[in-house]
Amino acid sequence: MVSDLERMKKERDKWYQLAIKYTKYYAGKFATVPRVPVTKLTDFAIWYTPGVAAVSREIHKNRELSFELTSRWNTIAIISDGTRVLGLGNVGPEAAMPVMEGKALLFKYLGGVDAVPIVIGTTDRDEIVDLVKKLEPTFGGVNLEDIESPKCFYLLDTLRKELKIPVWHDDQQGTAGATLAGLYNALKLTGRKLTDSKIVLVGAGASNVCTFRVLVAAGVPPGNMIVLDSKGILHPEREDMDRLMIRNPWKYEIAMKSNKEGVKGGIPEALEGADVVIAASRPGPGIIKKEWIAKMNKDPIVFALANPVPEIWPWEAKEAGAKITATGRSDLPNQINNSLMFPAVFRGALDAKAITITDEMMIAAARELAKFAEEKGIHENYIIPTMMEWEVYPRVAAAVATKAIEQGIARVKESWQYFHDRAIEIIGATRKTLELLMKHGIIPPFPD
Amino acid sequence: MVSDLERMKKERDKWYQLAIKYTKYYAGKFATVPRVPVTKLTDFAIWYTPGVAAVSREIHKNRELSFELTSRWNTIAIISDGTRVLGLGNVGPEAAMPVMEGKALLFKYLGGVDAVPIVIGTTDRDEIVDLVKKLEPTFGGVNLEDIESPKCFYLLDTLRKELKIPVWHDDQQGTAGATLAGLYNALKLTGRKLTDSKIVLVGAGASNVCTFRVLVAAGVPPGNMIVLDSKGILHPEREDMDRLMIRNPWKYEIAMKSNKEGVKGGIPEALEGADVVIAASRPGPGIIKKEWIAKMNKDPIVFALANPVPEIWPWEAKEAGAKITATGRSDLPNQINNSLMFPAVFRGALDAKAITITDEMMIAAARELAKFAEEKGIHENYIIPTMMEWEVYPRVAAAVATKAIEQGIARVKESWQYFHDRAIEIIGATRKTLELLMKHGIIPPFPD
Repeated sequence: MVSDLERMKKERDKWYQLAIKYTKYYAGKFATVPRVPVTKLTDFAIWYTPGVAAVSREIHKNRELSFELTSRWNTIAIISDGTRVLGLGNVGPEAAMPVMEGKALLFKYLGGVDAVPIVIGTTDRDEIVDLVKKLEPTFGGVNLEDIESPKCFYLLDTLRKELKIPVWHDDQQGTAGATLAGLYNALKLTGRKLTDSKIVLVGAGASNVCTFRVLVAAGVPPGNMIVLDSKGILHPEREDMDRLMIRNPWKYEIAMKSNKEGVKGGIPEALEGADVVIAASRPGPGIIKKEWIAKMNKDPIVFALANPVPEIWPWEAKEAGAKITATGRSDLPNQINNSLMFPAVFRGALDAKAITITDEMMIAAARELAKFAEEKGIHENYIIPTMMEWEVYPRVAAAVATKAIEQGIARVKESWQYFHDRAIEIIGATRKTLELLMKHGIIPPFPD
Repeated sequence: MVSDLERMKKERDKWYQLAIKYTKYYAGKFATVPRVPVTKLTDFAIWYTPGVAAVSREIHKNRELSFELTSRWNTIAIISDGTRVLGLGNVGPEAAMPVMEGKALLFKYLGGVDAVPIVIGTTDRDEIVDLVKKLEPTFGGVNLEDIESPKCFYLLDTLRKELKIPVWHDDQQGTAGATLAGLYNALKLTGRKLTDSKIVLVGAGASNVCTFRVLVAAGVPPGNMIVLDSKGILHPEREDMDRLMIRNPWKYEIAMKSNKEGVKGGIPEALEGADVVIAASRPGPGIIKKEWIAKMNKDPIVFALANPVPEIWPWEAKEAGAKITATGRSDLPNQINNSLMFPAVFRGALDAKAITITDEMMIAAARELAKFAEEKGIHENYIIPTMMEWEVYPRVAAAVATKAIEQGIARVKESWQYFHDRAIEIIGATRKTLELLMKHGIIPPFPD
């Protein structure tokens, strides 16, 4: 096991070195490009003055037309204050930018979404709300990213309420959605039902707080879940409840609703007799011990999602009796990967011109991910698709768009097939663009 | 003359119709594109996790590296509150977007600059300052656009002072710079000196207030100029001076410094015995009358820059004795066109990593524009290059960058040739990208 860790660290250091070398060579990852032809200078009489005045006048008469006559229909902002960047913590906006540019690349490559990375010079929650609201006329959606908890809960709740365009916090909803997708199939493989299972959530940060809410929305009785933070199991008699109520009402609410049996203590107490554990706490190994897994119900499901090292290695969990394991790592089977969610969810929400992304739309996305894997044939080491299976993205997009129509929040009402084909077309054009730019040396090959 | 106006209106209506039709077809003008290769999914281990963490860590250690390890070095924001959009007035942010997208297209096509159009939901000057400051970590520069006067003066002054990246208001500096360029050659052709000429500025909005300042910086004694607003000639005894001092201190200052002979009245009084008139007031014709031009000094210079129709048609001005005329129109000779300025000015400022754009850098750009035309051979109908002469852009960029180094505000200290060649390379890559996308149908041809 030490050698595994050593090997992985070596591997990681290799990526670190390549990332610095190549990022310097290419000088960042983001660029802009015209969406329209320019063949002669008089074309600017169409795209700029005098022609553009007529386009502005149309939108002035009917602001909704900004989704048809500008690129707003496909343009979102990726917004971060740099307070919780990957495993690095609060490194500030400038240092957050490489991550946001990477995210923009994923949005474009996997979802055909034009995402503009924006890092901001404030960490005050109300200032962030204010700023995002003022940017609303520019964008068709907002993806919040790498923002510390509990501020991120406030931001998502407030902005979802106050904006007329989809707002998403990927560290909450992306992870929760991918988790749910994997969980659906893990439950199938172990003959369980979501509604009957006892589920333990280790960690009460961005993703697990959202996972709790989504699991409830998906049908899990809240009392069937036990949730832990760094101080142990949440329950209504914990001595810090008064403080929690004020400082983190989201966690407070979980403490009040979950854990109907009133279990107290730490991870071992929580896991006793549980069916599922979903850990999203802090890098392991050793956060969850083998002997605790051994006390779970038969054939338990163990999702250990901390990065870069899961709370317990999957092979350890299996040795202790786990039937299905999953991690956040791309080099291990069953990666719970929010890159399966956000590009497709936004593709669908944007194409339906949905005014928000509901939890139901996220659940529809998770179901479609699970269904895709099931159709291909699920087994212990394949409960969720991988990023390589790119046929899944248009399907998820169509599922999300269709759900938005069903919920009456879509401005475009078309068929599943329409949204599916449109997603293929848009994502396909991105791939083709990238291929062309590489083939013709505009994007040069990786240097030696 | 009526038939000229009719013909031009017909022409303009044609552009209006094409603009709406094509803008709808292409669904906006702005898109994003990767700057880096993606050939396999493991490339995301470089561009995203885990590799990206190392890049973030480098910037966290030294924030200046955000200009090397992210796309910030070439990315600017085009910011508008939609309060003074073209000739349309205050149409709001959504309706301003088509113009900002057009501007972004010009920035990219002519200067190779990645410009992100951002329209904002506030018109309050201090809120705008606050918002732009919070966006600073994202961008390498800011282009303010279509913001009403006098707010635009406050914004430019304040943001230039408070930001460590170039801030530019094109309606002020772009127009002033292009005007200066044309004026240099007009003066040469009529055997005048800038320092001796009597200059009248008709209109005291964004561009002429800036033109006044720039002309002073370029060597014109302020007393040699007379400036008019809609109420007539500015002079210290005007009854509205107290109000001006508070509401528009920029105009107040001009009233105090200009017009050393204390001329009072309107345009005819101002023009008597003047060498040059630069009108940037409101659409004509008939704002400036032929008989007033006739009272200017011999061989006068008449710049009538209002759009879409100049304050006096050039042929009328010539009939009244004007030697050199210029307008803002692309279909008439001597177009005073800020598209000659902003793409190249930013190209130079960004490549030099200048912390601001000084008036001296703008004057250097104007001089280079004038010099370029002079080398080609100036005459009455060619005092300034056209947008078609794209060799001028790298030269202007190099002039701006070199001036920034001379002034000690550049972080990159290279030769004129370096900046010139770099500009050619970057702008050339944009052209090639656009050609490829058109050739391969990613950007389809104009529809019938």
